[in-house]
Amino acid sequence: MSAEGTQENTNNVKVSGEEPNSDNKEKEITENGTNETTNTGTEPVAEAEIEVPKKEMRAVVLTGFGGLKSVKILKKPEPTIKEDEVLIRVKACGLNFQDLMVRQGAIDSPPKCPFILGFECAGEIEQIGEQVKDFQVGDRVVALPEYQAWAELVAVSTKYVFKLPKGLSYTDAAALAINYTLAYILLFEIGTLSEGKSILVHSVGGGVGQAVVQLAKTVPDVTIIGVCSKGKHESLKAENSPIDHLLEKGCDYVNEVKKSLPDGVDIVLDCLGGEECNKGYNILKPMGKYILYGTANVVTGETKGFFSTARCWWQVDKVSPLKLFDENKTLAGFNLRHLLYHQNGAAYINKIILKVFQLYQDGKVKPQLDSVWALEDVADAMQKMHDRKNIGKLVLDPSMEPKPKPATPAKKDKKKQSSTEEKKENDETKEEKKDEVVAEKKEETVANNSAGEPVAEGQENK
Amino acid sequence: MSAEGTQENTNNVKVSGEEPNSDNKEKEITENGTNETTNTGTEPVAEAEIEVPKKEMRAVVLTGFGGLKSVKILKKPEPTIKEDEVLIRVKACGLNFQDLMVRQGAIDSPPKCPFILGFECAGEIEQIGEQVKDFQVGDRVVALPEYQAWAELVAVSTKYVFKLPKGLSYTDAAALAINYTLAYILLFEIGTLSEGKSILVHSVGGGVGQAVVQLAKTVPDVTIIGVCSKGKHESLKAENSPIDHLLEKGCDYVNEVKKSLPDGVDIVLDCLGGEECNKGYNILKPMGKYILYGTANVVTGETKGFFSTARCWWQVDKVSPLKLFDENKTLAGFNLRHLLYHQNGAAYINKIILKVFQLYQDGKVKPQLDSVWALEDVADAMQKMHDRKNIGKLVLDPSMEPKPKPATPAKKDKKKQSSTEEKKENDETKEEKKDEVVAEKKEETVANNSAGEPVAEGQENK
Repeated sequence: MSAEGTQENTNNVKVSGEEPNSDNKEKEITENGTNETTNTGTEPVAEAEIEVPKKEMRAVVLTGFGGLKSVKILKKPEPTIKEDEVLIRVKACGLNFQDLMVRQGAIDSPPKCPFILGFECAGEIEQIGEQVKDFQVGDRVVALPEYQAWAELVAVSTKYVFKLPKGLSYTDAAALAINYTLAYILLFEIGTLSEGKSILVHSVGGGVGQAVVQLAKTVPDVTIIGVCSKGKHESLKAENSPIDHLLEKGCDYVNEVKKSLPDGVDIVLDCLGGEECNKGYNILKPMGKYILYGTANVVTGETKGFFSTARCWWQVDKVSPLKLFDENKTLAGFNLRHLLYHQNGAAYINKIILKVFQLYQDGKVKPQLDSVWALEDVADAMQKMHDRKNIGKLVLDPSMEPKPKPATPAKKDKKKQSSTEEKKENDETKEEKKDEVVAEKKEETVANNSAGEPVAEGQENK
Repeated sequence: MSAEGTQENTNNVKVSGEEPNSDNKEKEITENGTNETTNTGTEPVAEAEIEVPKKEMRAVVLTGFGGLKSVKILKKPEPTIKEDEVLIRVKACGLNFQDLMVRQGAIDSPPKCPFILGFECAGEIEQIGEQVKDFQVGDRVVALPEYQAWAELVAVSTKYVFKLPKGLSYTDAAALAINYTLAYILLFEIGTLSEGKSILVHSVGGGVGQAVVQLAKTVPDVTIIGVCSKGKHESLKAENSPIDHLLEKGCDYVNEVKKSLPDGVDIVLDCLGGEECNKGYNILKPMGKYILYGTANVVTGETKGFFSTARCWWQVDKVSPLKLFDENKTLAGFNLRHLLYHQNGAAYINKIILKVFQLYQDGKVKPQLDSVWALEDVADAMQKMHDRKNIGKLVLDPSMEPKPKPATPAKKDKKKQSSTEEKKENDETKEEKKDEVVAEKKEETVANNSAGEPVAEGQENK
């Protein structure tokens, strides 16, 4: 609701870098998603119908694969919903490492640019399709659409939409949905974590890493070995840390692990891939499980070419089932994106999300927020994740956008875009501005957030 | 106790095919495991001390790798116990497919012949070592020694010994221990079986197969697809079978499965290996788990050479972790023998056995016995398993041996051995004899078996 001010802009703004594209839903939309009633007397309509108001929304659009300059905040037509979809007014978007990979084109079958980024958002249902029965307008939900999530409005099939339990804020929901579902599946659906077992977690400071730590600690006597960059160690060691052994990214962690656990570990959770696969497999104790759930090692520079990607995977040993039989080991892979969008896994994910929400309501888990950002600051947020500087989840809040000047909206929009492109050059001034907005937002969110307080950048929520 | 008659034979019988071997514990033993007290006045002892009584026991000995002719019932010295061992008077021995593989030498690092076969026995503790604290004489136990189990007496480290709960007969214990522990680990420790999932089980009629079916059916709404030889179908289909789809061994089961489950299955349990590995992996649905827990395809003829074994495994695709990541699949291996004897897994197995015993006591599982055999009939029992004709567990009972004639024991023994070798030639007469013994045994065991009735060959215990 707080973002409604932007809807006052009814001019048909021509946006740079954006081709009219049928895939892109750049159709004319009226308020209720149809135009039958208003057009009954005037069909056929003149081609150059410039004066008819076109409803628009702000969205984070990827204009081409590559660096941060291709990530732009643009005006896009509000989406129309299909009969099995709901329209969600987005209050919080989750940032995931996968978004960085998408930006670089480092995933299989990426969509055509330009498209709206984002796989995770929480908000309120504003409209429902004709066939929708399980949701109604006003429902508080979290959604996992295939792209399109980082916008003020999202139209998404109900199979990717999950109702929020009471007391779960939008920000916390966006921090829980992907990370905790992923962590739950890794630990309990594949890893079979049980009392007394040990886990090695790469990128333990990130959103998934922190979710893994919290979920693992719901089981008695679990030993957690976390690997992450040195810069995060101080924060992660602070207070009574649930991480039993904290190792530095890039160290000889195989030897380090063997110092405290000579037999190896029960579960290795690897979001990196490449050479870590072999190390992870070899550090397993008998009955141990290695689970690959990400390929972050593919993303090391701003962009990465085919050959360096391929080289990263040439190093990985293929394993025969007979070797697993001889060694009593398990090798597994988990790819949430494939499962949800290519393998019909939404019903399964729904079951897991319900379990995660229950754990939240029982007070067993509480999302670890790193920071909340305006849509316009998404490049900075992405850079922070790229630099492995976040501890916990990065969330975008569409309502954090600076209000546009009503007098010259078109000009304002253009200025906004170019300022996004200049972002990298004037990081320091942006940082100040962002801090202001974050601080402002913090108060606002705390007011309607009974369960988990969002945390400004650099602060820890423990 | 019923086998004590054989101890009356105190002559030092020289056994054919058996070299004195330090590994083989062919030492002189007195009743309490030491000879210090009796020898104090007579040291040094004359070399040809023929008159001193030597306690012996009957045991199933493998005299050389290969066919059934190498499996012999021999007199062996009673074992002495080490300080961490107990001496068990064996009442029932479990026959496992692994024993067939050992006989053929189709396992890694086999022991030197001759040695006593068998990995599983149940009985009563007759003696305890000096360091033993958790067991006492008279305890009813099941033991999983590395070989040595098929004998009247077994000395075994306490880490491989597990106390029986009340009401569990020795026969049922020998039928539960390996098969149900294995099945439990496959389904719940690796497969993460849960409500609504589907399983494909090879060799569903065998001991492990039947254990898998029973344990799987403790979870609601599980679909079981069983594969086995046509000859077992009638018995397995009888009554209200828990197997949802029964397929014929050697059929195009991949297509058959897809008729009823187009998306594939959640768990494939493969005890065959070879080409089944690739089929099993490919028939998995997303989030599916393929588990190799045996390599029975290596044993197809009486013996199998290196090249045919190697060819069997050349066909198996090696899998990259990246492929598992793309496809959301798990590949696992489980080798109970390696875990127990080479990977220090006894404590882990102890935990699982306790769970299995609890399920038994709760009436949730009840071992499916195929038949009980005398030690002397072990070749026939092995042949039956080799021919895939058993439904459920084959158990050996040392007390079922025909009583020896006291007048000419040495001659009797020799006769016994040669009759074992002739077994293959006169199957029909043996079959009659065996049926007699089994029927006799059946009555006997039913009397002291409150929970599970042993079943004569061909009858079903449902």
